Amino acid sequence: MRLRLTPRDPSYFDLFAAQASYLVVGANLLAEILGADRATRKDINRRMAEAEHAADDATHTIMRRLNQTFVTPFDRDDIYNLASSLDDCMDFMDEAADLIVLYKVDELPARVSDQVQVLQRAAELTAEAMPRLRSMDSLQEYWVEVNRLENQADKTHRKLLAQMFDEITDPILLLKLKEIVEKLEDAADAFEKVANSIETIALKES
Amino acid sequence: MRLRLTPRDPSYFDLFAAQASYLVVGANLLAEILGADRATRKDINRRMAEAEHAADDATHTIMRRLNQTFVTPFDRDDIYNLASSLDDCMDFMDEAADLIVLYKVDELPARVSDQVQVLQRAAELTAEAMPRLRSMDSLQEYWVEVNRLENQADKTHRKLLAQMFDEITDPILLLKLKEIVEKLEDAADAFEKVANSIETIALKES
Amino acid sequence: MRLRLTPRDPSYFDLFAAQASYLVVGANLLAEILGADRATRKDINRRMAEAEHAADDATHTIMRRLNQTFVTPFDRDDIYNLASSLDDCMDFMDEAADLIVLYKVDELPARVSDQVQVLQRAAELTAEAMPRLRSMDSLQEYWVEVNRLENQADKTHRKLLAQMFDEITDPILLLKLKEIVEKLEDAADAFEKVANSIETIALKES
Repeated sequence: MRLRLTPRDPSYFDLFAAQASYLVVGANLLAEILGADRATRKDINRRMAEAEHAADDATHTIMRRLNQTFVTPFDRDDIYNLASSLDDCMDFMDEAADLIVLYKVDELPARVSDQVQVLQRAAELTAEAMPRLRSMDSLQEYWVEVNRLENQADKTHRKLLAQMFDEITDPILLLKLKEIVEKLEDAADAFEKVANSIETIALKES
Repeated sequence: MRLRLTPRDPSYFDLFAAQASYLVVGANLLAEILGADRATRKDINRRMAEAEHAADDATHTIMRRLNQTFVTPFDRDDIYNLASSLDDCMDFMDEAADLIVLYKVDELPARVSDQVQVLQRAAELTAEAMPRLRSMDSLQEYWVEVNRLENQADKTHRKLLAQMFDEITDPILLLKLKEIVEKLEDAADAFEKVANSIETIALKES
Repeated sequence: MRLRLTPRDPSYFDLFAAQASYLVVGANLLAEILGADRATRKDINRRMAEAEHAADDATHTIMRRLNQTFVTPFDRDDIYNLASSLDDCMDFMDEAADLIVLYKVDELPARVSDQVQVLQRAAELTAEAMPRLRSMDSLQEYWVEVNRLENQADKTHRKLLAQMFDEITDPILLLKLKEIVEKLEDAADAFEKVANSIETIALKES
């Protein structure tokens, strides 16, 4: 069964809101996967793939419409950038979940949960902000907060890296974990890019 | 001796066709390099570097013309994106060949051949599609097929990664092979981006 | 104390010049960090972070102005690309310094100095070129020379990689050094992108 969060004849606003809703689903599945056993992880990963496909459909609908219509609520480039960076958030979270299953990593360092919690919060804020794009209402607090979260994610990431290189002596395990935590950091960066796109749109409208 | 596939006063269409022709050359050289011994590999890698230079020249000619002329057959951004992503295909294939020589990897896992076969097919399809840009004729089957190929490449890549992490115990060899197969996956992604650029152009014209 | 190289009401030209000045500071700090002991490295890294913040402020000022004004000295996209690629130069140099401290790497291979010297030269040339953007005066020698430097950086990078894989047997040390030298190579690429942006601007004006 496919998730469906978008109405039949959706507007750009509906489609952005749908993209962002899938991010909340994705971030929560990431949190779930951390504590799960191997068998359950595979199942969670399948649900993640479903969310990623659904988000991808919303992205394609935006891009197709952008190429076929003249009138857009914001600059075409800004719509393109916003849709792309929302899509990137999902892709990086999906890739992280995928690698956890693919690399059969049994236990993840505790700080990975901190990384994922930041992603969950960023996803919620993003999903809450999207409906406000119509009215441009109180968007500044959203982008300021996501920038703050990204800074926090960055610090956690650096501490985690230092700790991993200090404590893990198996180079192959280190290689696996490094790639996973980097995907999570990439996801945090992508959420910041979403916030920057929103800031650009809001500044132009003001 | 330099390869030369472009006429004296080429159009954008000629230049795109030239870029794509070098991709066929590059993908075939990649296939050759897999089965070759070390001495032959160096020689093949030199021919790859020649193809990369020639493709680079075509890219620069497109970019220079784009900056100096007002009339373009498609949107400037779309020409830029198409030329850039054709260039990326070549760069990633060249880098993969380069790393095979640089890292002195004697034997590559069997699935690497599957990756390269997909690149050969994507390159052929791309080269066949470029001349059809003029008339916008039957381009859809091209981009649908390249998207399918990229999905296939992605699955092969994931299986290959899982297998490598299961079977290879030498971490330095693993590090080398991982980087090579990732370049090949990057090349497959770049072919998909070319197909997406073509889709964007075709949708706007329709 | 924050570095401040920009006047109170700066023009785009002033802001690009400021961004480029921080790159000179950053490249010199990178050169300093190589020969320093661990305690001094931390201190140099803090000064690098200050330079990075200051460069970031200049970038944000450019982006904000771009979103709020209609009249720009060059195409908006070109201003955006130039500011972004100047920012990337700084980010990659900062990340390299950061990893040297984070990974507690005691000794770096001799060729890393060659990489950093190229970055110092590229940064100086870039800082010297920025004030000439107003008059478009003798910019071609700048971009030709930076392209030459990037080619040189690329060759050094490849030799360094081959040497590291030949000589280093500790996979974890290899993993650390590889990431550091790749950030330096990314910085050299970013300087080339700056030069390409300048070339694009100059060609359009000519």
